[in-house]
Amino acid sequence: EGINLDHMRHLRAGKPEAVLAEFKTVDEVVEIAKKCVSEKRPVLFTRVTAEQSTALSELGLAINERARTARHMRLEEESGKVAIFAAGTSDIPVAEEAKETAEFLGMEVLRFYDVGVAGIHRLIEPLEVLSKEDVDSVIVVAGMEGALPSVVAGLVDLPVIAVPTSVGYGTSLKGFTALFSMLQSCSSGVAVVNIDNGFGAAVFAHLISKRVRKKRL
Amino acid sequence: EGINLDHMRHLRAGKPEAVLAEFKTVDEVVEIAKKCVSEKRPVLFTRVTAEQSTALSELGLAINERARTARHMRLEEESGKVAIFAAGTSDIPVAEEAKETAEFLGMEVLRFYDVGVAGIHRLIEPLEVLSKEDVDSVIVVAGMEGALPSVVAGLVDLPVIAVPTSVGYGTSLKGFTALFSMLQSCSSGVAVVNIDNGFGAAVFAHLISKRVRKKRL
Amino acid sequence: EGINLDHMRHLRAGKPEAVLAEFKTVDEVVEIAKKCVSEKRPVLFTRVTAEQSTALSELGLAINERARTARHMRLEEESGKVAIFAAGTSDIPVAEEAKETAEFLGMEVLRFYDVGVAGIHRLIEPLEVLSKEDVDSVIVVAGMEGALPSVVAGLVDLPVIAVPTSVGYGTSLKGFTALFSMLQSCSSGVAVVNIDNGFGAAVFAHLISKRVRKKRL
Amino acid sequence: EGINLDHMRHLRAGKPEAVLAEFKTVDEVVEIAKKCVSEKRPVLFTRVTAEQSTALSELGLAINERARTARHMRLEEESGKVAIFAAGTSDIPVAEEAKETAEFLGMEVLRFYDVGVAGIHRLIEPLEVLSKEDVDSVIVVAGMEGALPSVVAGLVDLPVIAVPTSVGYGTSLKGFTALFSMLQSCSSGVAVVNIDNGFGAAVFAHLISKRVRKKRL
Amino acid sequence: EGINLDHMRHLRAGKPEAVLAEFKTVDEVVEIAKKCVSEKRPVLFTRVTAEQSTALSELGLAINERARTARHMRLEEESGKVAIFAAGTSDIPVAEEAKETAEFLGMEVLRFYDVGVAGIHRLIEPLEVLSKEDVDSVIVVAGMEGALPSVVAGLVDLPVIAVPTSVGYGTSLKGFTALFSMLQSCSSGVAVVNIDNGFGAAVFAHLISKRVRKKRL
Amino acid sequence: EGINLDHMRHLRAGKPEAVLAEFKTVDEVVEIAKKCVSEKRPVLFTRVTAEQSTALSELGLAINERARTARHMRLEEESGKVAIFAAGTSDIPVAEEAKETAEFLGMEVLRFYDVGVAGIHRLIEPLEVLSKEDVDSVIVVAGMEGALPSVVAGLVDLPVIAVPTSVGYGTSLKGFTALFSMLQSCSSGVAVVNIDNGFGAAVFAHLISKRVRKKRL
Amino acid sequence: EGINLDHMRHLRAGKPEAVLAEFKTVDEVVEIAKKCVSEKRPVLFTRVTAEQSTALSELGLAINERARTARHMRLEEESGKVAIFAAGTSDIPVAEEAKETAEFLGMEVLRFYDVGVAGIHRLIEPLEVLSKEDVDSVIVVAGMEGALPSVVAGLVDLPVIAVPTSVGYGTSLKGFTALFSMLQSCSSGVAVVNIDNGFGAAVFAHLISKRVRKKRL
Amino acid sequence: EGINLDHMRHLRAGKPEAVLAEFKTVDEVVEIAKKCVSEKRPVLFTRVTAEQSTALSELGLAINERARTARHMRLEEESGKVAIFAAGTSDIPVAEEAKETAEFLGMEVLRFYDVGVAGIHRLIEPLEVLSKEDVDSVIVVAGMEGALPSVVAGLVDLPVIAVPTSVGYGTSLKGFTALFSMLQSCSSGVAVVNIDNGFGAAVFAHLISKRVRKKRL
Ligand SMILES: Nc1ncnc2c1ncn2[C@@H]1O[C@H](COP(=O)(O)O)[C@@H](O)[C@H]1O
Ligand SMILES: Nc1ncnc2c1ncn2[C@@H]1O[C@H](COP(=O)(O)O)[C@@H](O)[C@H]1O
Ligand SMILES: Nc1ncnc2c1ncn2[C@@H]1O[C@H](COP(=O)(O)O)[C@@H](O)[C@H]1O
Ligand SMILES: Nc1ncnc2c1ncn2[C@@H]1O[C@H](COP(=O)(O)O)[C@@H](O)[C@H]1O
Ligand SMILES: [Mg+2]
Ligand SMILES: [Mg+2]
Ligand SMILES: [Mg+2]
Ligand SMILES: [Mg+2]
Ligand SMILES: [Mg+2]
Ligand SMILES: [Mg+2]
Ligand SMILES: [Mg+2]
Ligand SMILES: [Mg+2]
Repeated sequence: EGINLDHMRHLRAGKPEAVLAEFKTVDEVVEIAKKCVSEKRPVLFTRVTAEQSTALSELGLAINERARTARHMRLEEESGKVAIFAAGTSDIPVAEEAKETAEFLGMEVLRFYDVGVAGIHRLIEPLEVLSKEDVDSVIVVAGMEGALPSVVAGLVDLPVIAVPTSVGYGTSLKGFTALFSMLQSCSSGVAVVNIDNGFGAAVFAHLISKRVRKKRL
Repeated sequence: EGINLDHMRHLRAGKPEAVLAEFKTVDEVVEIAKKCVSEKRPVLFTRVTAEQSTALSELGLAINERARTARHMRLEEESGKVAIFAAGTSDIPVAEEAKETAEFLGMEVLRFYDVGVAGIHRLIEPLEVLSKEDVDSVIVVAGMEGALPSVVAGLVDLPVIAVPTSVGYGTSLKGFTALFSMLQSCSSGVAVVNIDNGFGAAVFAHLISKRVRKKRL
Repeated sequence: EGINLDHMRHLRAGKPEAVLAEFKTVDEVVEIAKKCVSEKRPVLFTRVTAEQSTALSELGLAINERARTARHMRLEEESGKVAIFAAGTSDIPVAEEAKETAEFLGMEVLRFYDVGVAGIHRLIEPLEVLSKEDVDSVIVVAGMEGALPSVVAGLVDLPVIAVPTSVGYGTSLKGFTALFSMLQSCSSGVAVVNIDNGFGAAVFAHLISKRVRKKRL
Repeated sequence: EGINLDHMRHLRAGKPEAVLAEFKTVDEVVEIAKKCVSEKRPVLFTRVTAEQSTALSELGLAINERARTARHMRLEEESGKVAIFAAGTSDIPVAEEAKETAEFLGMEVLRFYDVGVAGIHRLIEPLEVLSKEDVDSVIVVAGMEGALPSVVAGLVDLPVIAVPTSVGYGTSLKGFTALFSMLQSCSSGVAVVNIDNGFGAAVFAHLISKRVRKKRL
Repeated sequence: EGINLDHMRHLRAGKPEAVLAEFKTVDEVVEIAKKCVSEKRPVLFTRVTAEQSTALSELGLAINERARTARHMRLEEESGKVAIFAAGTSDIPVAEEAKETAEFLGMEVLRFYDVGVAGIHRLIEPLEVLSKEDVDSVIVVAGMEGALPSVVAGLVDLPVIAVPTSVGYGTSLKGFTALFSMLQSCSSGVAVVNIDNGFGAAVFAHLISKRVRKKRL
Repeated sequence: EGINLDHMRHLRAGKPEAVLAEFKTVDEVVEIAKKCVSEKRPVLFTRVTAEQSTALSELGLAINERARTARHMRLEEESGKVAIFAAGTSDIPVAEEAKETAEFLGMEVLRFYDVGVAGIHRLIEPLEVLSKEDVDSVIVVAGMEGALPSVVAGLVDLPVIAVPTSVGYGTSLKGFTALFSMLQSCSSGVAVVNIDNGFGAAVFAHLISKRVRKKRL
Repeated sequence: EGINLDHMRHLRAGKPEAVLAEFKTVDEVVEIAKKCVSEKRPVLFTRVTAEQSTALSELGLAINERARTARHMRLEEESGKVAIFAAGTSDIPVAEEAKETAEFLGMEVLRFYDVGVAGIHRLIEPLEVLSKEDVDSVIVVAGMEGALPSVVAGLVDLPVIAVPTSVGYGTSLKGFTALFSMLQSCSSGVAVVNIDNGFGAAVFAHLISKRVRKKRL
Repeated sequence: EGINLDHMRHLRAGKPEAVLAEFKTVDEVVEIAKKCVSEKRPVLFTRVTAEQSTALSELGLAINERARTARHMRLEEESGKVAIFAAGTSDIPVAEEAKETAEFLGMEVLRFYDVGVAGIHRLIEPLEVLSKEDVDSVIVVAGMEGALPSVVAGLVDLPVIAVPTSVGYGTSLKGFTALFSMLQSCSSGVAVVNIDNGFGAAVFAHLISKRVRKKRL
């Protein structure tokens, strides 16, 4: 007899089937949203265009303009706590995408923005706060030279999930310099997701928190 | 008064000060090892050359030839369990570097080698085993097209730490194709470390396990 | 006496002189179409713009919007059967270009879309179907990490023609990561065409089928 | 009940489990060879080093020095005919790897070497010969600017499998210029394998021939 | 006493001070044109935008739309003959820029367009013609795989000036694949100018012709 | 009359004619050294090989093994003070090349090594020291992610000359990631020299110090 | 007791907090400007869009259209003198950004534009002038092949700050060829800032001048 | 009737079939040399290894060690004059390869070495000499930033054939920076050959001279 594939299905994670709206038409996005609303199913849209945003807002979804997200309900409740650091103000949209995703997945989020390495003293207070909170992992968002994850990982004993952003010009190479810097970090304890992928960082943080809480789906 | 930097020090993780032996002379490496042995301090050497290996072996360190590591004692005891997958036989040295580092950090390691996507059925049994073990995270090591982390992450609900290797020729680009594939994974729940960086993957896995066990240093 | 070049001409394949519309004006495209219609000659336009599409539709050509093609008649009849796999929904336009081209060349097409490696179980049924059909070759279309051709080629004993797509962001490098992954496939039996080149994959599949049917032009 | 995975196994091709010797030690290679010889199982070693070659020769394997291959027996008999073109004399090792692999797979091989585009008249005779033979596909090996597949594909109506080589210096980019040229071919009917991958081209040609002969494994 | 710089000035070539219009405003371009017209000085504008073109046309300049040039008078008379080959129809704009520049410099131009290597037989007649004309050099314009200069240089004994174009998609890399192919040509006797630089090729051809006619400015 | 070029000569800086030994034979290097010694002229050799080093040592030149330099005399005396920071121990050879060059040019050098961003607290003391010294500029040497110059430039008001090193593996890209990070620094006040170019950084620092002391050569 | 971080703050340079307007909305930019005007604080906006420019102009800020800057007041007075060279007319916008920034920082600016290496004689007069002025450093702006800094640095004994620009097409690679040329300069005494970063060059020049004037902030 | 290919043969240039020795064994090279010597046919070997050089020297061939060439006889007599400029001493081997090839082709060669742009005054005298000689074209060899061809082409009215060399480190990118600079030259009248291709430059110069002398082969 063959190996039963249901085991395989059983193994599969209930990962959020979030919708990457960017490559879809307004109509396609609206259709998906309507279906979820009527079926009372949670859904998260990322990389939403201005036009899509207006349409989804009218359907009652919660819009975060800077994050370019729209969401309906939450997928889980109380699944853990994550801290999100952002180096510059231009990195905030990606940080907010991470925040929206994390909250959609039931997480509590601590935010520390505009704490880039050009003024290292700005990091002191956030780290003080962090050391007193029951946080499972840290997301660090940075563009340009992408140095913030190295500095943060040198100062905390939590997993640091680094998100390079496409912020910058010339040798920023649309985020590749930040990406390569982060992968090359002289501090250990850093893992990296794709450029501008705030969504992916939050899903990863959520998997850590789920494991911490010992509740497998 | 100023903010007291001792707090900053307090925040700092007791991350392993492992020695990257590759760029050091045999003498330098031996000196460090002798000091650790006499002071009974744990130490891990990675990317050890053949010559360094012989010298460190004579000092009584435990050598793993395939991993190119040498170690003296363990840094911690019982800090959690991690699974390590390797796609091809050529990826095993990097997988073994991860294994040695994880064990140095007190972790228990489950190994599943030669389970690449060219024969997807080879993954069934390892995943069955995995689903029954109390594992905190999964390290997936792969070179060439680097597809294994996507497939694994689609089937488990644990954080997947992907390690691209420099195995392959031509368009493997010394590991960059695997790296970019992994960052571009169509499965969410994957974060990535530098090419051939088995060490970094294990340190990251260890930070997750530490958090799971709620024991901060 | 010299070698007669007519032999050289005789050798030449009757390959379809399909029109790559993208770099042409609406007028140029319309002119070519009118000539073919009046002369009852088959013609295929690929990478057609919205404006060109409207104009060609008015001339009675069959439009496939997703494929961005327009065609008049078929070049051949009953030249063989090909299966087309597409990993994600964003890869469908390229898959459809392959389908339209294959049909223009007289082939029968089996389509299996949205069967990417993030949910490997979705591949089972298509492969079951495939094993019962009289197919000459398999076209596999995938963007992002481009892992699908490796998995498919590991499970079938037919030539696999891989088509990387420019779908993705950041490290997808507009299709180069998928391209390099496919060329680096750990399964043998894969050959690759240019990024987004559904047309080229179908022409290649057609040449295999022609050979299978032993009918040289 | 679950879908039976044995079907999946059944689908799998009996592709040759050739050994990529380059990354293995002499001992490992010898061990594999001895096992195959004693069990009378066919085996092909590619990218064999000089030292490995000597050892395998002593075990009675058939060595092709230029191809850097060693083989024991054939996997199949009479599986079809393939033509191999090589542009320059420096491309011959890769062409010979294709030839050895093809023969290992039971194919008959026609060779046309040193027929690069710098002297286009040299192509006339080979194409005359080709047009009279019952060939299933054409492998074209070329380095430097990689123009030969375009020219050949413009003159024959068979599938052309292009193999870029790492021959050249400066802007040859170790084969990437030839690779990109071939993928960009202005002739349709060309598909491409990895740089220097004569092995992969032959396996692909074999799959075409198998299909032509309608004999599935 | 110092070395007199007038010698240095004397050495300088009377190279055409053609205007690269692309980065200039319509007003700036019109002003230059008016001045040249009123002073009866010859001038050539390249990379002219549609809007600039209309304005310059009204001032009486001769427009070549495909070439994107506008010119007033000729700089020289009867300075030699050059042949221009273009591989595909998409390469014609660059070929026409070369033609306009060459004529502005007083040269006679023979054009052979749409003679790419996909149909090598199309080259025969042009080469017959070429062999009977008193031509000083050959400009070969090609995009995609850029193979035409190699083939032409293998068949003529004149300097071949190769111009890669940005025509193509995917692995054409906006002209870099054609550029690298041409620099890597297996035929000697080829030198290359920048991507899409029809202007530069013609200036170079003109310098050859000037030298042939032994008339230094 | 012409402009007198002697002025041009007069303008020229008395920059050190240091010898880049790497691409020269031992004989060539010895010959230059002997001439300088006998003529009592100062000379600096950089990128000296082991063999060259032995030969130059025998001629009485001062060797710095880690810096890979050999020097005879000093070019100037008391030309200013510079601080040199190095991130990791592997960056020290490049930092030492800068130190040797600076001293050859008559400068006083403050060194702060192993102060990388993985342990940001290590920077406090050096900066305290720095703030009390009469330094004209700061050279910061770093490999891997190259973050140190950003952090230092955020804390001092002196020109920071950044030197990327080729230290690292994988995404360090032999120094390009550090280079691009430094050019992309989120702190202003940073200018950069070539990878591993400690020599160039010191010459630049010297030009600043010369200007500060208002003594033009 | 801990090290007091106030020292660290004291060390920090009073570098201009200039606003990079490009990634901000008109409203955000106007808000910042209004606040600075009402508080009589100096502010510099760089990379201002046309729309932002109009709005800032209405608030009374001084606009430099070519430089794409807007400024309110000066940060300092009489902080030194800098010379700015620009190779081509297309490089002027970047040169003007440097000029505006330098003046905002209280510097006097000497400009020498359109002195590229295609006509080396054009450099003579500027260098004559330069040699008579009390200049602290030289900024050299160039695109295309970026050769000007090498030539200038070979003729003066001042620090040369090179700014590559994104001017050019094809192999200019949007400024990377100029950047790499400048870093690779065969003249020593050159340091480089990011592509198109006129702002950064001026801040660096200002730090040199501050040091020259021995006035630390 | 067909077009007679003999015409095609007739068109072909009698270009030198020089031997690129680098990828051949000593035996292969010796065999070719012996045949040419016994048949009294001229032959040129380029990129000769030390071992090959010794063997060829014993056969009586004329060795140029710096050029890494060996030659037997000359192909032509008195075919024109060419000037060769080399920027640095490290560029001399490539310049010498050009010189040897040119002489093999019957040309007279004027050499001007070590005239790089770091000391622009060094160019004056060579250009004075050049202006008095009957030269057909100029070859300019340069590595690092590759600026010399731009400067020379701005000062002469002859075709400038630029040869980038792989000299340099870091951002020299093994010659690509020089290559891209030369293709991007702000002076018109420059065409470029492959990195380190002194041979190709000389063949091209020879074709110009042949045309100047109106003697077609
Ligand atoms: N020259 C080659 N190039 C690419 N793949 C090869 C080559 N030779 C063998 N292979 C493949 O590599 C596999 C063996 O890898 P390994 O298990 O590491 O020996 C075989 O199954 C072949 O599919
Ligand atoms: N299409 C072109 N491509 C490259 N260079 C050109 C082109 N047209 C004009 N030029 C050159 O660009 C210079 C004009 O640049 P500009 O002063 O910016 O108008 C002329 O002297 C020519 O040498
Ligand atoms: N380590 C170095 N890196 C870059 N340039 C150097 C270095 N050492 C010396 N140089 C420069 O290279 C020139 C010497 O080149 P060469 O004539 O080949 O010995 C000197 O004038 C210096 O400007
Ligand atoms: N043109 C420019 N190029 C590079 N950096 C700039 C430029 N203009 C301003 N900046 C820097 O960017 C910072 C402002 O960034 P932001 O806070 O996003 O406005 C300033 O503190 C400057 O250091
Ligand atoms: Mg900031
Ligand atoms: Mg395997
Ligand atoms: Mg999908
Ligand atoms: Mg050949
Ligand atoms: Mg065509
Ligand atoms: Mg360190
Ligand atoms: Mg100019
Ligand atoms: Mg020099």
